[in-house]
Amino acid sequence: MDFRIEKDTMGDVQVPADKFWGAQTERSRNNFKIGPEASMPKEIIEAFAYLKKAAAFTNAELGVLSSEKRDAISKVCDEILEGKLADQFPLVIWQTGSGTQSNMNVNEVISNRSHVNSGGKLGEKAEVHPNDDVNKSQSSNDTFPTAMHIAAYKKVVETTIPAVEKLRDTLKSKSEEFSTIVKIGRTHLMDATPITLGQEFSGYVAQLNYALKAIKNTLEHLQELALGGTAVGTGLNTPKGYDVLVAKYIAEFTNLPFVTAPNKYEALAAHDAIVETHGALKQLAVSLYKIAQDIRLLASGPRSGIGEIHIPENEPGSSIMPGKVNPTQNEALTMVCAQVLGNDVTISFAGTQGNYELNVFKPVMAANFLQSAQLLGDACISFNDHCAVGIEPNLPRIKELVDKSLMLVTALNTHIGYENAAKIAKTAHKNGTTLKEEAVNLGLLTAEQFDEWVKPEDMVGGLK
Amino acid sequence: MDFRIEKDTMGDVQVPADKFWGAQTERSRNNFKIGPEASMPKEIIEAFAYLKKAAAFTNAELGVLSSEKRDAISKVCDEILEGKLADQFPLVIWQTGSGTQSNMNVNEVISNRSHVNSGGKLGEKAEVHPNDDVNKSQSSNDTFPTAMHIAAYKKVVETTIPAVEKLRDTLKSKSEEFSTIVKIGRTHLMDATPITLGQEFSGYVAQLNYALKAIKNTLEHLQELALGGTAVGTGLNTPKGYDVLVAKYIAEFTNLPFVTAPNKYEALAAHDAIVETHGALKQLAVSLYKIAQDIRLLASGPRSGIGEIHIPENEPGSSIMPGKVNPTQNEALTMVCAQVLGNDVTISFAGTQGNYELNVFKPVMAANFLQSAQLLGDACISFNDHCAVGIEPNLPRIKELVDKSLMLVTALNTHIGYENAAKIAKTAHKNGTTLKEEAVNLGLLTAEQFDEWVKPEDMVGGLK
Amino acid sequence: MDFRIEKDTMGDVQVPADKFWGAQTERSRNNFKIGPEASMPKEIIEAFAYLKKAAAFTNAELGVLSSEKRDAISKVCDEILEGKLADQFPLVIWQTGSGTQSNMNVNEVISNRSHVNSGGKLGEKAEVHPNDDVNKSQSSNDTFPTAMHIAAYKKVVETTIPAVEKLRDTLKSKSEEFSTIVKIGRTHLMDATPITLGQEFSGYVAQLNYALKAIKNTLEHLQELALGGTAVGTGLNTPKGYDVLVAKYIAEFTNLPFVTAPNKYEALAAHDAIVETHGALKQLAVSLYKIAQDIRLLASGPRSGIGEIHIPENEPGSSIMPGKVNPTQNEALTMVCAQVLGNDVTISFAGTQGNYELNVFKPVMAANFLQSAQLLGDACISFNDHCAVGIEPNLPRIKELVDKSLMLVTALNTHIGYENAAKIAKTAHKNGTTLKEEAVNLGLLTAEQFDEWVKPEDMVGGLK
Amino acid sequence: MDFRIEKDTMGDVQVPADKFWGAQTERSRNNFKIGPEASMPKEIIEAFAYLKKAAAFTNAELGVLSSEKRDAISKVCDEILEGKLADQFPLVIWQTGSGTQSNMNVNEVISNRSHVNSGGKLGEKAEVHPNDDVNKSQSSNDTFPTAMHIAAYKKVVETTIPAVEKLRDTLKSKSEEFSTIVKIGRTHLMDATPITLGQEFSGYVAQLNYALKAIKNTLEHLQELALGGTAVGTGLNTPKGYDVLVAKYIAEFTNLPFVTAPNKYEALAAHDAIVETHGALKQLAVSLYKIAQDIRLLASGPRSGIGEIHIPENEPGSSIMPGKVNPTQNEALTMVCAQVLGNDVTISFAGTQGNYELNVFKPVMAANFLQSAQLLGDACISFNDHCAVGIEPNLPRIKELVDKSLMLVTALNTHIGYENAAKIAKTAHKNGTTLKEEAVNLGLLTAEQFDEWVKPEDMVGGLK
Repeated sequence: MDFRIEKDTMGDVQVPADKFWGAQTERSRNNFKIGPEASMPKEIIEAFAYLKKAAAFTNAELGVLSSEKRDAISKVCDEILEGKLADQFPLVIWQTGSGTQSNMNVNEVISNRSHVNSGGKLGEKAEVHPNDDVNKSQSSNDTFPTAMHIAAYKKVVETTIPAVEKLRDTLKSKSEEFSTIVKIGRTHLMDATPITLGQEFSGYVAQLNYALKAIKNTLEHLQELALGGTAVGTGLNTPKGYDVLVAKYIAEFTNLPFVTAPNKYEALAAHDAIVETHGALKQLAVSLYKIAQDIRLLASGPRSGIGEIHIPENEPGSSIMPGKVNPTQNEALTMVCAQVLGNDVTISFAGTQGNYELNVFKPVMAANFLQSAQLLGDACISFNDHCAVGIEPNLPRIKELVDKSLMLVTALNTHIGYENAAKIAKTAHKNGTTLKEEAVNLGLLTAEQFDEWVKPEDMVGGLK
Repeated sequence: MDFRIEKDTMGDVQVPADKFWGAQTERSRNNFKIGPEASMPKEIIEAFAYLKKAAAFTNAELGVLSSEKRDAISKVCDEILEGKLADQFPLVIWQTGSGTQSNMNVNEVISNRSHVNSGGKLGEKAEVHPNDDVNKSQSSNDTFPTAMHIAAYKKVVETTIPAVEKLRDTLKSKSEEFSTIVKIGRTHLMDATPITLGQEFSGYVAQLNYALKAIKNTLEHLQELALGGTAVGTGLNTPKGYDVLVAKYIAEFTNLPFVTAPNKYEALAAHDAIVETHGALKQLAVSLYKIAQDIRLLASGPRSGIGEIHIPENEPGSSIMPGKVNPTQNEALTMVCAQVLGNDVTISFAGTQGNYELNVFKPVMAANFLQSAQLLGDACISFNDHCAVGIEPNLPRIKELVDKSLMLVTALNTHIGYENAAKIAKTAHKNGTTLKEEAVNLGLLTAEQFDEWVKPEDMVGGLK
Repeated sequence: MDFRIEKDTMGDVQVPADKFWGAQTERSRNNFKIGPEASMPKEIIEAFAYLKKAAAFTNAELGVLSSEKRDAISKVCDEILEGKLADQFPLVIWQTGSGTQSNMNVNEVISNRSHVNSGGKLGEKAEVHPNDDVNKSQSSNDTFPTAMHIAAYKKVVETTIPAVEKLRDTLKSKSEEFSTIVKIGRTHLMDATPITLGQEFSGYVAQLNYALKAIKNTLEHLQELALGGTAVGTGLNTPKGYDVLVAKYIAEFTNLPFVTAPNKYEALAAHDAIVETHGALKQLAVSLYKIAQDIRLLASGPRSGIGEIHIPENEPGSSIMPGKVNPTQNEALTMVCAQVLGNDVTISFAGTQGNYELNVFKPVMAANFLQSAQLLGDACISFNDHCAVGIEPNLPRIKELVDKSLMLVTALNTHIGYENAAKIAKTAHKNGTTLKEEAVNLGLLTAEQFDEWVKPEDMVGGLK
Repeated sequence: MDFRIEKDTMGDVQVPADKFWGAQTERSRNNFKIGPEASMPKEIIEAFAYLKKAAAFTNAELGVLSSEKRDAISKVCDEILEGKLADQFPLVIWQTGSGTQSNMNVNEVISNRSHVNSGGKLGEKAEVHPNDDVNKSQSSNDTFPTAMHIAAYKKVVETTIPAVEKLRDTLKSKSEEFSTIVKIGRTHLMDATPITLGQEFSGYVAQLNYALKAIKNTLEHLQELALGGTAVGTGLNTPKGYDVLVAKYIAEFTNLPFVTAPNKYEALAAHDAIVETHGALKQLAVSLYKIAQDIRLLASGPRSGIGEIHIPENEPGSSIMPGKVNPTQNEALTMVCAQVLGNDVTISFAGTQGNYELNVFKPVMAANFLQSAQLLGDACISFNDHCAVGIEPNLPRIKELVDKSLMLVTALNTHIGYENAAKIAKTAHKNGTTLKEEAVNLGLLTAEQFDEWVKPEDMVGGLK
C-alpha cells in the first residue's frame, strides 16, 4: 500500500496515500484494533456532517470564519451526507470515550477533502485547518454528544416510531376485525373466563400506544444539543450567541426541532437524555415481547398446541422435519427485545460513570442506542409485514376450546355464590363431565337456568 | 399454639386461633416458605385497604351490596390503614404471581375481623363473606395491579419526589453560593480548562431536574387503575359504571388523582406502567450516582487526593486508622443506585413475561418498585441532610490546582493557533515549568500578552 | 426512652440505655435512615461472631491478647451465635460501603456485653476495648469481606446446594418413572417429532447438574478469607502468622474449609469471588426458569391448554373463578429467578466499582448475594415439595396429541426423502387429514409401509 | 441484477444468479430485513463448515453417505474455512431463533457450490442435496448449538484467554518491578496507610488469575456438542454411533477437545453452557473495569490530579485543549466492560426462554457471546500494548503524597492505643500540621519514638 506522511502535534504518521484522513485518525486506527473495523455508527458520522456544516455557518455569521472556508467545509459535509465519502471513517466504537478521534476523523477528512476539492493534492498543507477551522468554536466534548443526540433523535423519529405506529395500526384493525370472536381467556396459562379475540388484541394496541407516548415524552430532552459548551461546558473560545445559533442551523439542516441545551455542564458530563429515551425503548421492548410471545402461543400447533390463530407461513421451518412451519418473525422480534434489555444495562451503567466535566462512555452509549432503535424499528416492520397483517382466527378451534371450559362457571357466582359454583366446577373436572351436567346433578340450578345464565358471549361485554 | 378450623373450597385448614386470616392465607403460609415471613410490602396491604373500602362503597352505591356490609368492610379497612392489624398479613412476595393469596388474606381478615367487630367469635361463619362480599365485583387479577399502582404512585409522589426536590434545592443553593469560585475543570479525569464550582454544581441541579421531569412524565400512566376488569379484563360480574366509580372513590380516599384504566386487558396482562415509572427511577439513580461519585472525588484526601471541597465529618471512618473520615453518605447513596439498576432488570424481565390475559410476576414487580422508590427517597434525604448541606469549598486548594494547570493554554488557541499552543503546553509539561515561561521562551508571545490572554476567571464566562 | 452517654473519638452520643451498642452504632442509626431498620443480613452478624472469636483466639495464641480478654470476647460471640443478642444489631445495608459501622456495632456490643457479663454496668468503661481488643489485628476492610465470604459460603453449601440436589433427585426419579411414555416433542412451540416424557425430564436433571457443578467450581475462591490484610491489605498491625491461623480457627469454628486468601489486596479491593459465585447462582436461576416454565406449560389447561401432565392442586387459584387451580409454585419460582437476574446486575455493577485499595459496595453485594442464595434454596424446596413430587402424566391426553401430529412424517425422510415427506405433511395439514391417508393418496408409499416406518415409539430411541 | 429460479418445498424463489445460496436463504433475506446485512457472525459460518465436514465424514464412515458426496461436501467446507466463499452468507442474527436459515444457507451453498466444483451450472439440480445429503443425520436444532459451542470455545481459547494472560504477565512484571516503591494507600478514595505500588499491582494480577481460572472452569461444559440429537434430542434419523464419532471428527478438524454432550435434550433446549462461560467473561469484565479505573485514577493529572504513575501518550487528547493527553486505552477497555455487562443480561434473559425441546434465542446468544469474547481479547491486547507495558512510577509525586499522609498514625495504635492516635491525627488535620509535631505537642510520645515507630516502609511489610 502507498502511504503519505501526515502530522499532528505529536509528530509524523504514515497514512494510506488515497485516504483523506490524517494523522490522528491513523493513530487511532493503529491504537484501537478492537473488534471489527469502522464500527463507529455511520449515523454518528452523518450527524457530524450536519453539525460541522452548522458550525461553519454559525462561525461565518458571527464573523470568526471566512465565507470561503465556510463554503469549503459545507461542501464536504454535503458530500458526506450524500454518502460519497463512506470509506473515509475507519474508526471503531472502542476508542477514546469522548469520541475525540472520530471528531478529528471528520475534521481531518473535511480539511483534506476540501483541499482536493479546491484543486490541491493530498499531503500538502490544507487551507482549511482541521482544528482551527473545521473544529472552530467546538470541542470533541460538545460535538460528540451533539452528534449523539442528532443521530439518536433522527433514528427514533424516522425509524422506530413510524414502525411501531405501523404495527399498532395493524393490530388495531385486527382488534376491530376480531371484535365478536368469543374465545377462552387464560390466566396463569390456565383456562379462565371468556374474552373476545378483539379484546385480547386491544391490549396489545394499548401497550404500543403507551410505549409510543413514553418515547415521545423523552424527546424534549433528547432534542437539546450540547454544542457551544466546548471543552468543559463554559463555552470557552466560542463567539457570543454561538450556541443558540448553531442549534438553529442544525434544526434547519436536519429539519428537526433541535435547540441548544440550557445547561451545558449536564450535557457534557452526563448523558441522561440517552438513558431516558433508551429507557422508553426498553419499555417498548417489554411490550413487544409480550405481544410476540402471546401470538406465538396462540398460533402454536398446528395440531397439538393452542392453535387459535393462524399466522403466515413464510419459509420451511425445519431442515429435518418436512412441512414444519414456525413463528419465525416472533422469534426474530423477541431476540431483538432481549438485545434491547441488555443494551439498556450497558447504557445505564455507562451513564453512571461520568466524572467531573465529562462522561467518557459516549461511543458505547451511542452505538447501543442506535442499535436498539434501528432493530426495534426494523423488527416491527418485519413482524408487521410478514406476520401481523396475515393473522387469521381459527374459528372452529376457538369455539371448541371455549365451549368446553370449566371457567364459564364464574357466571354463576352472582346467582349461587362462589362456593357452590366451585363445587360444580370441581365435580365436572373430576368426572370429566360438563358444567351443565354437574350443575343439575348437584341440584344447584336447572338446565334452563344454566342455559340462561352461562353464555360465553354474555361474559365478555362488561368492557370494550 | 392454639388453632381453630377454617375452610375454603378445598376443605379444612388449621389456623392460629388468634389470627383473623382464614384458610387460604394459611395454605399460602404453609406452601410458600420462601425467604423471610411477611415480606409482601406493607404498602400493598394499605393499598388493598383503600381499594376494598372503595369497592364496598361502589358496590353499595350501585345496589349490589347492603349498606351494613359496606360499613362493616369499611371499618376494617380503616383499622388496617391505622396500622391496627399489622400482624395479620404474614404472606410473602414469593407466592402466586397474581397475588391472589394476598388479596384473599385481605378478604379473609376483613371478613373475620368484621365478624368480631360486630360481636361474633372467630371460627363462626361471618356475615361478610370474603369472596362474595369483600371481593364483590373484583378479582385478584384486577385488585392486585390496582394495589400496585396505588402503592407505587403514593410512594413516588410522597417519598421519592419530595426527597429529590429537597436535594435539588440544596445543590441549587450551593451552585449559586459557589458561582464565583474558579477551579480547574477535568475531563477524562485529566486537567482541563477552568470552570466555576457553581457551574459544576449547576450540572447536578440540571440532572435532577431532568430526572424529576422524567418521573413526572410517567405518572399519568401510573394513575390508571385496573379495577373493574375482574378476571380477564372484560369486567365480568361487575355492575354497570363500576370501574369509573370505584376509581373515583379511591381517588377520594387517597387524595390522589387516580382514574380507571381505559383498557383493562393491558392493565391485567402487562405492567408497563410499572416498567415505565421504574425506568425513570433508574434514570434518577444514574444521575445520583454521577453526582455522589463526583462529590466524593472532589472531597478525596484530605492530603493526598483532590481535596477541593470539604464534606461533613459524621462518624469515625475506620476501625483501625485513627482520625479517618470517609464519604459515607456518598457510599450509601451509590449502593442504593446499584440496587435500583438491578431492580430495573428484574422489573423489565418480569414485565416481558405476561401470557395471554395475565402477567403473573406482580408481587416481584411491586416489591422491587417500592424498594427502589423508598431507598431513593430515603437516601436523597440522608445525603442531603448529612452531606450536601455541609459541602464547603477548600479555597486555597482550589486556587493551587487551577493556577498550575497547563490547560490554561487553551485560551491562546484563538490568538496563536492550536499547534503553537500545544507546543507551549508540551514543553512546560516536559520541563516542569510554567506556561508563561515557555510561551516567552518559545518566542510565541510576550509575558504581557500572556497575562492579558490567560486569565482563568475569563475562561469560565461563556455560559452560566 | 432512657439513654446513657457513650463516646468515641468524635465525642458523646446518647444511646438507648438498655442496648449494648455504643457511640458509633448510634451515629450510624441516626445518619443512615434508609429503608427498614436492621436490614443488614443477620448472616453477616453471625459471620462476624465467628471471626471475632477466631481473632481473639489467634491474638491470644500469638501473644497479643490476654486469655481473659479472649474468653470474654469468645463468650459474647457464642451468645450472638445462639441468637441471644438478636436485637443488638440495628444497622442497615445502606451505610458506609466498607461496612465499618456494622463491624463497630459488633465490636461495641462485644465490649459492653462482656462488661456486663463480668458484673459491670452499661455506661462504665469496659475492660475489653472495642477497637484495641475486639478489633485487634483487624480492620473493617478485612473483617467485612471475611464476614461476606463466611456468610455466603455457608448459605450456598447449607441452603442452596442441598435444595437444588433435592429437586434434582425428584426430577431424576420422575425422569426414570416416565421413561416409556411417548409424547409429542415441541420446537418453536410447534409440534415436532416424538420424545418420551422421561427424556424431556432428563434435560431438566442435566441442567441442574450443570448448575450444581458450576456453583461448586466457584467455591474454592469463595473459601478464601481476607482477614489478616487489615486496612489496605498489607497486614499492618497484625502479628506474624496471624492470617493463616485466624483462617484455621474460622474453619474450625464453622466446620467449613476456609483458608487465608493468598493475595489480600485483591480480597479487599475487589469482590470477584462474590461476583463469581453469584454468576453461578444466576446460571441456576436461568435453568430453573426454563424448568418451571416448561412444567407450567405442560400442565396448562385443564381443558383448553396442553394438559399433558397434572401438578398438585395446593390452594384455590382464583378469588373470582370458582374451582380454578394454578401453577403457583412455578410462579413463585420464576419470580425468584427474575429477582436473581436483577441481583446479578447489582452485584456485577458493584463489583466494578472498587477504587484503589477498597471496594466500598460491600453491604449491597452481601445482601443481594444472601437474598439470592436463600430464595433459590427455599424456592427449590417449595417447588419440590409442593409441585415436582406430585407431577403425574395425563396419559390419554399425551396419546391423543402424539397420535395426531404431522411431524411423525420425519420418520419417512430416510425412506422417501425430505421433499416427498414434506409434500405428505403439507397435504395432510391443508386437508385436515392423516399422514397415512395422504401418503397413500399421493402414491408415495403403501399403507403397510407407513405402519412399519412411522411408529412414534421407534422415533425416540436414538438416545437415552 | 440477474436472477435464477431456485425452489424449496414452498415453491420457486428468485435468487441472484451469481450466488450459491438457494431458495431458503433468499426467503430469509427477504423476510428478515432487520439491522445490517450479513450480521450472523462469521465464526458461526466457519463452525458450520467444520461440522458439515465432520458430519459428511461420519455419515460416510457409518455407511449412509457415499464417499463421492463426502468429498464433494468436504471440499466446499474447506473453501469456506479458507475464506473463499465469504460473500455467500448474507443472513442476519434476527432470523428464526433456531438458526435454521443459516443452517440451510450453509447447506444450500455447499450443495450448489459442489455442483459447480464438479463442472455443473448454477440452477441445475445438484447431485448433493442440501437436506438429504449435506444435512444428513442433522437438524438445525442440533447443528446450530454445535456451531455455537465450536465458535465460542475457539474464540475463548484462541482470543480471550491468551490476551488476558498477556496482560496478566505484564502486570505481574510491573508488580515485581514496583515492589519496593512505597506509596500512600487509599480506601474510600481517602488517604490510608502505606502500600507498595507493587502490592497494588499484585491485586490486579490476582484478579486476572481468578478470572482466568473461572473461565477455564466453564470450558468442560462448553466443549460438549449437541450434534447427534437432531430435531428434539432423540437422535432420530442418525445411524448408530453417530454422535460420538462426529464429535471426534470435529475435535480432529478443529484440534480442540470437543466431545458429544451426554444429554442432548439439555443441549438443544437450554444453552446454559453459553450462560456459564459468558458469566465468567462478565466476571473478567468486572475485574478489568476495576484495574483500568484504578490505573486512570493513578495517572490522573498531570498537575491537578493524583499523578502517581505515568501512562504512555499515544495521541493528542483533545481537539480544543492543546497538549492534552488522556487515558484513552482505559476508556476503550472500560467501554468494552460496559458492553459485556449488558451482553450478559441479554444472554441470561435469552437463556431462560427455552420452551419444551428448543431454545429459540440461539443467534442472539451466539452473537453476544462472540462479541464479548472478541472485544475482551482485543481490548486486553490493546490495553497491554499501548498502556500497561509503558506504565512508569512518578517517584517524586509518590513520595510527596505518602510523606504528608495523616494515616501513618495507624502505626501508633499498638503503642499508644486507637484513641490517642486518633487525637494526634485529628489535631494535625485541624491545624494543617504534621503528625510528629502534634504527637510531641500532645505529649503522647517523643520525637525519637515517632521516628522509630512511624516509618512508611515498615508499614507495608506484613504481606507480600
